[in-house]
Amino acid sequence: MLIPEIEAFLQCQTPQSWIDCALEHPEELLLDHANCEKKAAGTALTLMFRYAEREELQQYLSRLAREELRHFEQVTALMKKRGIRYRQLSASNYAQRLHQHIARQEPDKLIDTLIVGAFIEARSCERFYRLAPYLDEELGRFYTSLLKSESRHFEGYLRMAQMYAKQPIAERVAYFANIEREAILTQDAEFRFHSGIPKPKQDFRQRAQALEA
Amino acid sequence: MLIPEIEAFLQCQTPQSWIDCALEHPEELLLDHANCEKKAAGTALTLMFRYAEREELQQYLSRLAREELRHFEQVTALMKKRGIRYRQLSASNYAQRLHQHIARQEPDKLIDTLIVGAFIEARSCERFYRLAPYLDEELGRFYTSLLKSESRHFEGYLRMAQMYAKQPIAERVAYFANIEREAILTQDAEFRFHSGIPKPKQDFRQRAQALEA
Repeated sequence: MLIPEIEAFLQCQTPQSWIDCALEHPEELLLDHANCEKKAAGTALTLMFRYAEREELQQYLSRLAREELRHFEQVTALMKKRGIRYRQLSASNYAQRLHQHIARQEPDKLIDTLIVGAFIEARSCERFYRLAPYLDEELGRFYTSLLKSESRHFEGYLRMAQMYAKQPIAERVAYFANIEREAILTQDAEFRFHSGIPKPKQDFRQRAQALEA
Repeated sequence: MLIPEIEAFLQCQTPQSWIDCALEHPEELLLDHANCEKKAAGTALTLMFRYAEREELQQYLSRLAREELRHFEQVTALMKKRGIRYRQLSASNYAQRLHQHIARQEPDKLIDTLIVGAFIEARSCERFYRLAPYLDEELGRFYTSLLKSESRHFEGYLRMAQMYAKQPIAERVAYFANIEREAILTQDAEFRFHSGIPKPKQDFRQRAQALEA
């Protein structure tokens, strides 16, 4: 079950067209999922170096990075079993669309970064949840198992943001909720784990058919 | 027990003057140890992004990074218990002294990087071993427990280097063994986990005493 906190946090559901596209691109789904786990660990490490003096954050991010790496190993093991060779994919625009709105000055920069982290984790969680019923048993079971830990990450990021903020973060959360919603509902040429609405690929043929009709 | 492979691998023992200095700087010892664990995880992540196509390396580094992060959490927990506040210290020159000799071109760059990784792990292992008998029971037990995993890291880095090299790596290992030995026997102004021979701090007073005599 998708936890109600995430349902309330995200301003839109993943569109069905993204789900359909994911099912047509099982390789890219797993590949980019693996990349996302690795990038999540990388981000956690980067923040650990940037905010070395924040003790609770260090502890939190270290455990989070370990969990993301564990998931990375699990996805790549599953890929290997399915004969999918791991390779790096170009990044989707999703994270960039969120990151560009992060404040440049501290301590707002830290708070925003943590809020964005919460959105990325929450969206991952929601996508695992939406995808699971369509997947084969093994993958469905795996994605369901990830739900629990990713929802903990979402809560953890939010808790850290609130802890380091000098005032309530609700307004800033609402600000990023809108940006995140837009990112998910924007058309994207390439399919990725966090991409928006898939761009129809057969524009040319469709136009030709329309002209013939 | 320090495994014989490490004894044979390193071209010198840690000088007693470093051990003495470490015992005089218990805070810096733990602080820089914590930093080293974090940096080891960071390096593993960096390599995971740089060599995304090397499947075995990805798996190996991911597990290694998790273990280093676990140690980071353990050291910082121990620091907290002892009332030592975590802070970032400036880096010692040790890693830089090794890194500057890494080949610039691939695939040599990868092989050298892995060999350097093996030396850093082996030296850490040797220092834990040398320090343990002088430490209080809790810290001594902790450092002894790290010996085992750090020696596995040393072996893992070497195994990866040999796996990706097209020819035997013995010559390159010998090359870096000399550089590492020099780094350890060079005088260093600041005490760090991997620093060289401590520079006497009382030069001025000693000189004054010599002049008086």
